[in-house]
Amino acid sequence: MLAIFVTLMIVKNPKEGLIMSNLTPFQTHMKNKNLDLLYIDDPSTVAYLTGYQSNPHERVLAVLLFQDTLWMIVPALEYASVKGAVPVDRLISYEDGQSPWLFLKEALSEEEISIQTVGIHELTLSVTRYRALLSTLEKVTFVDITEMTQHLQAIKQAHEIDIMKEAGALADLALKIGMDALKTNITEEEVVSIIESAMKKRGVKEMSFDTMVLFGSNAASPHGTPGNNPLQPGQLVLFDLGVVHKGYTSDVTRTVAYGHVSQQSKDVYQVVLTAQEQAQASVRPGITAGELDSIARSVIEEAGYGKFFTHRLGHGLGMSVHEYPNIAPSDQTVIEKGFCFSLEPGIYIENEVGVRIEDCIVVTENGCEAFTHTPKDLITIEVKS
Amino acid sequence: MLAIFVTLMIVKNPKEGLIMSNLTPFQTHMKNKNLDLLYIDDPSTVAYLTGYQSNPHERVLAVLLFQDTLWMIVPALEYASVKGAVPVDRLISYEDGQSPWLFLKEALSEEEISIQTVGIHELTLSVTRYRALLSTLEKVTFVDITEMTQHLQAIKQAHEIDIMKEAGALADLALKIGMDALKTNITEEEVVSIIESAMKKRGVKEMSFDTMVLFGSNAASPHGTPGNNPLQPGQLVLFDLGVVHKGYTSDVTRTVAYGHVSQQSKDVYQVVLTAQEQAQASVRPGITAGELDSIARSVIEEAGYGKFFTHRLGHGLGMSVHEYPNIAPSDQTVIEKGFCFSLEPGIYIENEVGVRIEDCIVVTENGCEAFTHTPKDLITIEVKS
Repeated sequence: MLAIFVTLMIVKNPKEGLIMSNLTPFQTHMKNKNLDLLYIDDPSTVAYLTGYQSNPHERVLAVLLFQDTLWMIVPALEYASVKGAVPVDRLISYEDGQSPWLFLKEALSEEEISIQTVGIHELTLSVTRYRALLSTLEKVTFVDITEMTQHLQAIKQAHEIDIMKEAGALADLALKIGMDALKTNITEEEVVSIIESAMKKRGVKEMSFDTMVLFGSNAASPHGTPGNNPLQPGQLVLFDLGVVHKGYTSDVTRTVAYGHVSQQSKDVYQVVLTAQEQAQASVRPGITAGELDSIARSVIEEAGYGKFFTHRLGHGLGMSVHEYPNIAPSDQTVIEKGFCFSLEPGIYIENEVGVRIEDCIVVTENGCEAFTHTPKDLITIEVKS
Repeated sequence: MLAIFVTLMIVKNPKEGLIMSNLTPFQTHMKNKNLDLLYIDDPSTVAYLTGYQSNPHERVLAVLLFQDTLWMIVPALEYASVKGAVPVDRLISYEDGQSPWLFLKEALSEEEISIQTVGIHELTLSVTRYRALLSTLEKVTFVDITEMTQHLQAIKQAHEIDIMKEAGALADLALKIGMDALKTNITEEEVVSIIESAMKKRGVKEMSFDTMVLFGSNAASPHGTPGNNPLQPGQLVLFDLGVVHKGYTSDVTRTVAYGHVSQQSKDVYQVVLTAQEQAQASVRPGITAGELDSIARSVIEEAGYGKFFTHRLGHGLGMSVHEYPNIAPSDQTVIEKGFCFSLEPGIYIENEVGVRIEDCIVVTENGCEAFTHTPKDLITIEVKS
């Protein structure tokens, strides 16, 4: 493939000033904390701050955010598209074989900028680049901004929530397409293919992750992947899917019955549903992530299935399908208005039955609002041949 | 989606001992360099060393390679599948919310292992994890093993080359399917969809990257992506695609004529072809990457198109579609037997014509062998309506 393979996707601004509205809280924080510069090269945070989405692979493509200005360092091949898309105050570009760090040093010296304190995102910054920054920016103090970045990105703004609602509606549509496709002897992979083709036709360029469609006991394996299993009446069908829409992800899981399913399947389903609904009903600013996990986990434990709920309750999502916060046992993160995350309890009894139910929600003033609206009571799909 | 989303794909061992044969050169190097331990958490290197492929997202899933033993740290949810797949001497697992570093410290203390020197892959290791290692492994010396790792992975072994030939054959097939699909007014996206569906039916689970099919001047934009452009007679069509096969990638580019194309298109094509073929004919152990780039670049410069060849000549590939070596201007890397990389010169004259031709090759004793065999002389596809 082309040496720089660029997935260029400028997030279309639903309103003027989207980009600036994502930068502003960062710059406010910088002023409060006396940070002269933030260096950020994690592609998802670069996209969040600038609207410019690209996978530069091993090359440096970074945001240099000052308290009042925005610089970027980009590979030469991306110069024109960044220039056209991002209101950047200074754009440093370099050819393959040249050192971006040398150009950065020159630019700082030209503009006579003196830097004391630099924020770096240690969670994603590589040691190699950290060492390059250490030698480029002599005598500065580095501060880890991972938590700050995660926190600011977690609080979704109105324009982001609007997009995530649209992404959720597309996930509901994908679920409907999947359910409509079910018939005896169809395979998991065939259903995946029907869903993904139909979404592509509706303009979805990318799913959030590999679409999961699992039949019967395959849904009970924590590592089940769609295969050639033919659907049989009496099986549960687990769908876990989402789309990328205007740079934002959706994510939803439903488990449905194909024909009449066993009493065990119904019982397990009911427990998961209760756990999911109780957790969702408990979301509000001020509760902790660990408390939410515990609400769902207690329901499942009290029903005697505790050891079959083998993962955390949920995860944040936004431009990435996995981000802060982590809705896990004992996690002390205090939930805030604007946080978006999944609530997805599951019970997996190997070789028998697997059920998971998931909505992603945004935290509101007093509760939360789901991005997906496919009914959660057990849906039974009529057997078709 | 499920909290830990695992793309589990154990590389099927074509021969007994594949895993060990990938570990052995690393352990030999450790003995030569007096390294007591390598810490590696880059998913592609973990897969290379163990055959276990997984995307653990923010969780730690790492190889701890000692001179004679193999340990891993894995999230609890992956314990069973790693245990069943990797002949690991000690498997450390942790639940969400627990510290993998604490368990590592305990395990080292239990086994009474004393460590002086630890190799880390600084290019991919995050600063956060580096700091965790610093505090877990007190008083050790860290050594950057990025170059060593890249170099050992670059020298492909016979079993790897066999798989990459199969991956190349599948890419040739995908090209044929794409060419057969061309007809007037079909869109780029439709051709992509036909190729990807057909490959899926043949058991290909994943393409190496988003398949590129670009018509006419869209192929001349460095950021062209497949869209709704309808194919017209007289256009060139650029295909850039590859598949993931048994954990290894392929990558090929061909530009073909749809009906009669302009003399300019033919001239540009011929220059790119000559550049590509001369570079490929020059590959042998001992030449440098920069020399190869220069051979192709000179052909294009002498024909007067130098400024339209805007990227390096090529990149290594293997389990990743972009890896060491970098075939770029002035790059001093000495090419060795077993290296696998792309040779993909291109000329892009904006709003006019874009041509790229690419084969990936493995370096042999005296030259090289291509993984793809679709003819490179300009192919003309008959106009169909």
